[in-house]
Amino acid sequence: MATLCRPAIAVPEHIITREQTLDLARELHAGHPQLPLALRLIANTGVRTRHLVQPIEETLRHPGLTTRNARYETEAKARVPEAVRRALSHAELAPRDIDMIVYVSCTGFMMPSMTAWLINTMGFRPQTRQLPIAQLGCAAGGAAINRAHDFCTAYPYANVLIVCCEFCSLCYQPTDLAVGNLLSNGLFGDAIATAVVRGRGGTGVRLDHNGSHLVPGTEDWISYAIRDTGFHFMLDKRVPGTMADLAPALRDMAALRDWNISDLAFYIVHAGGPRILDDLCTHLNLPPAMFRYSRATLTERGNIASAVVFDALERFFDDGGADHTAQGLIAGFGPGITAEITLGTWNTTGEPDRPPTHRLTALPGAPAHA
Amino acid sequence: MATLCRPAIAVPEHIITREQTLDLARELHAGHPQLPLALRLIANTGVRTRHLVQPIEETLRHPGLTTRNARYETEAKARVPEAVRRALSHAELAPRDIDMIVYVSCTGFMMPSMTAWLINTMGFRPQTRQLPIAQLGCAAGGAAINRAHDFCTAYPYANVLIVCCEFCSLCYQPTDLAVGNLLSNGLFGDAIATAVVRGRGGTGVRLDHNGSHLVPGTEDWISYAIRDTGFHFMLDKRVPGTMADLAPALRDMAALRDWNISDLAFYIVHAGGPRILDDLCTHLNLPPAMFRYSRATLTERGNIASAVVFDALERFFDDGGADHTAQGLIAGFGPGITAEITLGTWNTTGEPDRPPTHRLTALPGAPAHA
Repeated sequence: MATLCRPAIAVPEHIITREQTLDLARELHAGHPQLPLALRLIANTGVRTRHLVQPIEETLRHPGLTTRNARYETEAKARVPEAVRRALSHAELAPRDIDMIVYVSCTGFMMPSMTAWLINTMGFRPQTRQLPIAQLGCAAGGAAINRAHDFCTAYPYANVLIVCCEFCSLCYQPTDLAVGNLLSNGLFGDAIATAVVRGRGGTGVRLDHNGSHLVPGTEDWISYAIRDTGFHFMLDKRVPGTMADLAPALRDMAALRDWNISDLAFYIVHAGGPRILDDLCTHLNLPPAMFRYSRATLTERGNIASAVVFDALERFFDDGGADHTAQGLIAGFGPGITAEITLGTWNTTGEPDRPPTHRLTALPGAPAHA
Repeated sequence: MATLCRPAIAVPEHIITREQTLDLARELHAGHPQLPLALRLIANTGVRTRHLVQPIEETLRHPGLTTRNARYETEAKARVPEAVRRALSHAELAPRDIDMIVYVSCTGFMMPSMTAWLINTMGFRPQTRQLPIAQLGCAAGGAAINRAHDFCTAYPYANVLIVCCEFCSLCYQPTDLAVGNLLSNGLFGDAIATAVVRGRGGTGVRLDHNGSHLVPGTEDWISYAIRDTGFHFMLDKRVPGTMADLAPALRDMAALRDWNISDLAFYIVHAGGPRILDDLCTHLNLPPAMFRYSRATLTERGNIASAVVFDALERFFDDGGADHTAQGLIAGFGPGITAEITLGTWNTTGEPDRPPTHRLTALPGAPAHA
């Protein structure tokens, strides 16, 4: 059984507060007919602080896609390795024990992916599978867990490293002036999240089941327009209401395991905005406190895209987790509109850690983690 | 055991011949100090014809990334569904039987990925897993097969649809004038390739083993520079020599199954250029005819990126395949430098097709294909 071990989170050193964000919006968009609405929406997000990879003065300048993407690469290479080392340490594994790296990021683009650089510079084996995902947006954190789970189901002794690197501030577009854009400018933050899924051994969330759900006909609700100036985030005002469609999908998946979606011990979900969390409480008949970890992420870091679920999960670990075998849910939501859903149980003891007989790369079907 | 069924290929209607390519190079780059070298390199590729999604006059204009990427989306939506229907037909499956769509493309970028559009418009279930891969370049065809294989290993009754959509001509950059770029302008072509991996049933290549290999220290050899004008292809002159490093990786992987890499019945490899095929013959001690399918793809369609392995494989199917249980190799090569390697056996009978007990989405561990 695969176990999602304690994540490691890294946030950059530049901080912007809600007050600074609101002041900036007033200054930059004085005269914008919908400024009062935008200010209200931003205030309502509940976001108090966000972290940025560069000072706000630099963030507000758009030097072109060439420079922006080069900055993405520089910052990723400077910041990701330390977080990777911590995730490996939490899982008590070394780089050579990793069989696949899932690298997700929708805020910068590199080919080859960062996976190649990580393998070359951090001591991962040349045989490490590379799975870079750039197009699942905020759902990609959940997708990374689910594809890692699938891989460990196929190869029970495999270990998968997940890296989410989201520098949303590098997708800031000063000329995008729709209300959805003004809101986004006050919502998204930067962060790196890393975690290991161990096929055998380890403590954390034992992964029991996963699935995906696309809400039909909502492709345009969250999307990028790809332009000369890079990725332009497009947000439809219907998005906050999506939980009416996704809550039944969560409920149905839990029911497959005879779990009651309204009676789980923990809920780690994407905090795209406050309405998502409020609506999930309503639709799943849960008290607000059940989403306290996701809400804390939103409050302290903003919407950090695919990294949200790991940041919230890390808070759950930090809080002591749950009783052994307690059931819970992890869910990422993103463009599509897609939900990537994971059912898991809190596991404090770890499974007996059988001695490896073969490496994943040495013989199929019996990969080992050490 | 998962089986890779017969692929379906679609090439666009605009054709450019080698003579036209050489004439164009002479016309566009008259006075370029390395024109004679570029002409010689292009002639040496052996590429006779290539297919393009738009007439050559339009291809040569760079209207900016905004327009280019919009064109990618329009062309993909116009051309992919027909190829998907043929791949499903080859596998004797309907859209509702598919549990995951792996969509690979390095020549256009969309978020949400084409996977969401395909699910919404072609009758795939909302629960279909989406795995878009944009950053593995020409190796992504092999990666798609291998991740589909892994998924069917985890869920033995699952079926995976693979879609490769490569419109390389939309990455043409008229201001890139290095010899590597001039060569690339005469090498790459456009194509769509689709195929289904069935967890149970089906005939074709039974997937026995897969693996990946990154050649250390070669990250910069094949890469994209991401600029205001889009993806700029960067090709190092050392790339054609990479087979000296990758041939041993192929040999080692075959040896894990006690297979002799020099004595397989079929070889379906990425035809990045003629030197790759020539060098593989040398390093693996094989006669040139063993790469006849890959060479035919290169000759008739150029380097069609991730679609090459499927186009070559389709020719192998068309040629009658091999004896039942005959062993073979499929390998994609791309940026990293990465090889995605598959070992498989030709399977003409199909496995007994047990009646499904549960859908993948209905209960874990026992997904069904119908």
